[in-house]
Amino acid sequence: MDKKHIKFMKEAIRQAKISLRQGGIPIGSILVKDGKIIGRGYNKRVQKKSAILHAEMDCLENAGRLKAKDYRKCAIYSTLSPCDMCTGAILLYKIPTIVIGENETFKGPENYSKKRGAQIINLNMKECKEMMRDFIKEKPGLWNEDIGK
Amino acid sequence: MDKKHIKFMKEAIRQAKISLRQGGIPIGSILVKDGKIIGRGYNKRVQKKSAILHAEMDCLENAGRLKAKDYRKCAIYSTLSPCDMCTGAILLYKIPTIVIGENETFKGPENYSKKRGAQIINLNMKECKEMMRDFIKEKPGLWNEDIGK
Repeated sequence: MDKKHIKFMKEAIRQAKISLRQGGIPIGSILVKDGKIIGRGYNKRVQKKSAILHAEMDCLENAGRLKAKDYRKCAIYSTLSPCDMCTGAILLYKIPTIVIGENETFKGPENYSKKRGAQIINLNMKECKEMMRDFIKEKPGLWNEDIGK
Repeated sequence: MDKKHIKFMKEAIRQAKISLRQGGIPIGSILVKDGKIIGRGYNKRVQKKSAILHAEMDCLENAGRLKAKDYRKCAIYSTLSPCDMCTGAILLYKIPTIVIGENETFKGPENYSKKRGAQIINLNMKECKEMMRDFIKEKPGLWNEDIGK
């Protein structure tokens, strides 16, 4: 596995853990352009009573208003496979590369993303799976709410 | 055309016009449950320097954290066909009905929404088209940024 991806995913995991410490859902995301982190975010459903601030959305929001050509040079990292909403945001801005920590806890529309031209790299990291397993065990209702279940 | 849909779309248009008066992008949205408006929103790219607050996203955010079973009873109204991101949010929460003002200015992934089980009702309203035509004529760059172009 590419060491660069692991390094960036570690930062996404760090974001997820910030959320966890705040009583939130432990999913983190970062946006990388030309090898540099230009956005960081984590799920803020609890913290901001938000229905839309999944980690990837929060990350894109924190990266600010970018030009279309800049998004095309980005990779977005998420500790968990992006849901329909986050996938949609990634497709809107045509971010070509999606690196995920795992997709066993939850799997978004990955085939659709690929069909629409995105590359998905699954790092299949134990740390990401365990983080979600422990969280869901403790707060299953909150998790279901987050994925519209 | 169902009079109820026109009535609710008028409120979405009112939201779009609030945005326009603030120097923003004139797209508005409302969320309706059991015949009552439970969320309102408009595009806040300019107002909040936001990359994610399209009208539908702002509307869902303003409606707050709802239960899955409540989203299933909703219709979302938007003055313009929802983009990939907003469509994704609608699919995440399984909102069954999407009522749009028009889809000539911009057409989101409507076939995909239908394949995923949503109903789309296009009111094809002249007022919505003219609002966007005038706006895009005046600020083409801002419009392109909003759709990732």
